Amino acid sequence: MDSMVQTHPSRAGESADSYLWNAWYVGALASEVGPEELFPRTLLDTSILFYRKQDGTAVAIHDRCPHRFAPLHLGTRNGDQVVCKYHGLQFDCSGQCTHSPHGNGNIPKAAVVKSFPVIERYGFLWIWMGEKEADESLLPDFGYLDNGPDTALAHTYLHVNCHYELISDNVMDLSHVDHLHGEILSTKGTLSPLMAKVRETERAVNARWVWKQTPASLLFSPHMPDPAGETHLFFDITWTPPANIQLSVGATQTKTDAPLTLENTVGQYDLHTVTPESLDTTHYFFATRRNHLLDDAAHNEHMIQILHDTFQNEDGAMLEAVHAEMRTSDFFALNPVLMSNDVAPVKVRRLLKRLKIEEQTD
Amino acid sequence: MDSMVQTHPSRAGESADSYLWNAWYVGALASEVGPEELFPRTLLDTSILFYRKQDGTAVAIHDRCPHRFAPLHLGTRNGDQVVCKYHGLQFDCSGQCTHSPHGNGNIPKAAVVKSFPVIERYGFLWIWMGEKEADESLLPDFGYLDNGPDTALAHTYLHVNCHYELISDNVMDLSHVDHLHGEILSTKGTLSPLMAKVRETERAVNARWVWKQTPASLLFSPHMPDPAGETHLFFDITWTPPANIQLSVGATQTKTDAPLTLENTVGQYDLHTVTPESLDTTHYFFATRRNHLLDDAAHNEHMIQILHDTFQNEDGAMLEAVHAEMRTSDFFALNPVLMSNDVAPVKVRRLLKRLKIEEQTD
Amino acid sequence: MDSMVQTHPSRAGESADSYLWNAWYVGALASEVGPEELFPRTLLDTSILFYRKQDGTAVAIHDRCPHRFAPLHLGTRNGDQVVCKYHGLQFDCSGQCTHSPHGNGNIPKAAVVKSFPVIERYGFLWIWMGEKEADESLLPDFGYLDNGPDTALAHTYLHVNCHYELISDNVMDLSHVDHLHGEILSTKGTLSPLMAKVRETERAVNARWVWKQTPASLLFSPHMPDPAGETHLFFDITWTPPANIQLSVGATQTKTDAPLTLENTVGQYDLHTVTPESLDTTHYFFATRRNHLLDDAAHNEHMIQILHDTFQNEDGAMLEAVHAEMRTSDFFALNPVLMSNDVAPVKVRRLLKRLKIEEQTD
Repeated sequence: MDSMVQTHPSRAGESADSYLWNAWYVGALASEVGPEELFPRTLLDTSILFYRKQDGTAVAIHDRCPHRFAPLHLGTRNGDQVVCKYHGLQFDCSGQCTHSPHGNGNIPKAAVVKSFPVIERYGFLWIWMGEKEADESLLPDFGYLDNGPDTALAHTYLHVNCHYELISDNVMDLSHVDHLHGEILSTKGTLSPLMAKVRETERAVNARWVWKQTPASLLFSPHMPDPAGETHLFFDITWTPPANIQLSVGATQTKTDAPLTLENTVGQYDLHTVTPESLDTTHYFFATRRNHLLDDAAHNEHMIQILHDTFQNEDGAMLEAVHAEMRTSDFFALNPVLMSNDVAPVKVRRLLKRLKIEEQTD
Repeated sequence: MDSMVQTHPSRAGESADSYLWNAWYVGALASEVGPEELFPRTLLDTSILFYRKQDGTAVAIHDRCPHRFAPLHLGTRNGDQVVCKYHGLQFDCSGQCTHSPHGNGNIPKAAVVKSFPVIERYGFLWIWMGEKEADESLLPDFGYLDNGPDTALAHTYLHVNCHYELISDNVMDLSHVDHLHGEILSTKGTLSPLMAKVRETERAVNARWVWKQTPASLLFSPHMPDPAGETHLFFDITWTPPANIQLSVGATQTKTDAPLTLENTVGQYDLHTVTPESLDTTHYFFATRRNHLLDDAAHNEHMIQILHDTFQNEDGAMLEAVHAEMRTSDFFALNPVLMSNDVAPVKVRRLLKRLKIEEQTD
Repeated sequence: MDSMVQTHPSRAGESADSYLWNAWYVGALASEVGPEELFPRTLLDTSILFYRKQDGTAVAIHDRCPHRFAPLHLGTRNGDQVVCKYHGLQFDCSGQCTHSPHGNGNIPKAAVVKSFPVIERYGFLWIWMGEKEADESLLPDFGYLDNGPDTALAHTYLHVNCHYELISDNVMDLSHVDHLHGEILSTKGTLSPLMAKVRETERAVNARWVWKQTPASLLFSPHMPDPAGETHLFFDITWTPPANIQLSVGATQTKTDAPLTLENTVGQYDLHTVTPESLDTTHYFFATRRNHLLDDAAHNEHMIQILHDTFQNEDGAMLEAVHAEMRTSDFFALNPVLMSNDVAPVKVRRLLKRLKIEEQTD
């Protein structure tokens, strides 16, 4: 019997139960998959090919010819179909082989590539990779992103060499902002002493901070009536499976008894959502809609670049260092010292674990 | 007890039964091993040192001093012998230690390096790495390569990051040429619909295609009386263990009832032969003799460069992508969808497997 | 359950018994750790942070925050304390967390980083990583290095991709010098035939060679009355655990019945001491004190550069090739052919093994 060859050593210990499968993951920014493109990306250790039909509909199939395992993205488009570069088998977007140039042209029954449901929404291509029937109701409503002009909306993508749960840990505990980040996000030490108010439901974890600081961080102070003055702020973040974190943040100098929301503050509505490439590497997708300076395209471009660079060079660099130091994806096995600021991320880890166990025992 | 250290992770799963051992493999092009050279190459996960005695005879020994495991190719020549760079032990080409500069000069009985039979033939150095006595009769006759002027003969070498059996699969199923390659080898879609005639013997698999196309591929059309006209062609390929594929190809515009051969066509006699470096990496050797334009050295040089680039950039690139996607050397474990064009390569895989099992149970 | 991720494949097989733990290892040259520096280095597969308190005292703590495993060297200094870059926890040099900016500032009892005893001596920072109480008496006396002007003393550091015991093998068997090195260290073939006189005690192995050659190696001949004349020389080397080799070498043209020592020869007192980074990579530290040309700073600089380059390009290159060829750290499992020149290195391997077994069964 032949030996197994592990070209990716870190994948040696992978097992099916490492991921939640029956869920919507972002596979790509909608803008990454051009009309004629064969766009490959590895998700959950599986090679996926995204492309768009001639009517623009995005589709996803396994990026592996079932004949001799050639990556299909090396092939060519033929209308809505894909032709394998190696031996010319042609597949439609349901994964069915529709043409074989070999012999009498007979198409073996097994000549089918797995196809995956895709939803294009909020500027992303969402993919369902589980065995159960795709359940569109499990894609949360991030419709705030859709409401408003393009000049107040931006998306970006990062690749980070860490386990994906380290990224949700990072966003769910915003007490890191004063330590890891510079003035752009600084709370001047006012956030860390606060206990986030954390609420948990069957399929979500929410954390909320409300505080005041003087002045606001550079993200908001220029937009306040008194840039140097006391400012009231809030963070409101909600994790939903498999790995979405919706974060709203806003600032105001107007006194109000109402809870702070994006309705009564200058702020932005962000979506951080990550998809494991492998247990060691993660695709990090981000979208943000601003509720101010709606028509300022230059500001829009400037801000997404700043946020992108912050996530890459500050969060990303730290999380890669943490991942390398941990040398495992089993966070709790390392006996972390947990503190009050860890309530929300730990609730997320436990909820995800429960959902994975439910999926496996279903 | 000390832990094992695997500096080559992919070698972790290697086992002795991954290779057919009692067989002749090409270790090097004859031209790679100069008269004074100590030429190292890893074959079947074993470090081998090739060099030539002063009379030009090529020899091969384990490239590892038995004292402290220094690679012998780092050392120096002393006549027909090799002196280890680390502590000066000297070995003759049978692997016997003949001199120790240490203490009273006593040579321990175990101070022997394994030596390997080598045959220099057809422009290659063939090595026998098995435990059984080397059997020269197991080296197939590729004597056609020897018949004719040097200006119609060429050799080349490639290194490919894939399992060696993927290369025999590739050559045994020539239906890939219209999909993977350009005009130089194109059959204009005429080959794929044909079923190769496949014959199998105890130790060989032969596949043969005969077809016509208009015009011939660029490899032959310039040498036809009517370059744009209908041309009759044949491919005749024979696999022999451990990993030789002899391929003849020819074209003619002369009608004949006789079977097409290199005697009655314009064609060439090729030998593809591969040697595993490891389960993930392969040495690919190639020789070709042309039966036309015999004295055209410039054409000879031009053609071998074209073929080399084709194998490297088209076949090699595809096979490396396939290997990376497979992440295993156990082809059948992935449940490939097999078609009529796979008859010959599958017969080769089964024959090689039978020979390996026979060797292990012998 | 989550899978284990091995980002360092070669560490997969590591086990606690691979190293002698209760011992003093060099962690850094004293000069590597500047007054304000956070200096990280992996020792025995453990991330260590070295830094100096404001009074200059060197300290070492685990380079891993116990909260979320951020490397502490990414953080900042606060007086004698270190502030984690990720969430702002502050640790003193005993590893105790002294400040948390989170919530009510409560510091969990477990918020402690392991700290390690450090001794700064002989130009090195020595670290004790074992579980037993640090025993200063186990740091051998290399006080010769301290006696004399700085212009006759030099230190250097190399990183070598090999198992650490290969380096002690190399230094304990100096018969390699005529084969691996050039004229600078050449014994003109006079050393290899000699049997080193080897003595062993409970915790040390000593080897001694005394010989004559004409002329001396380039290291000494320029300092002899008759540079081309017959010279008497000695090597005296002593291994002590965990991985120190003190080597004295001297030359004289004065006849004497007394044993040759650094008192009656032109020579130098060297300390080779190595610390495993992992089972595949080693930190190599070196110090040397000359007993001649005491005030020649230029000569001093020239000589340490020559020795550094020799160790890196000749010893280091050979040992990396040997390590790669061995693919294991279990030297004896490969059935080495041992000779008279191997007596001292084999005694060292056996003594170290005995000490490791004693430690584990203690």
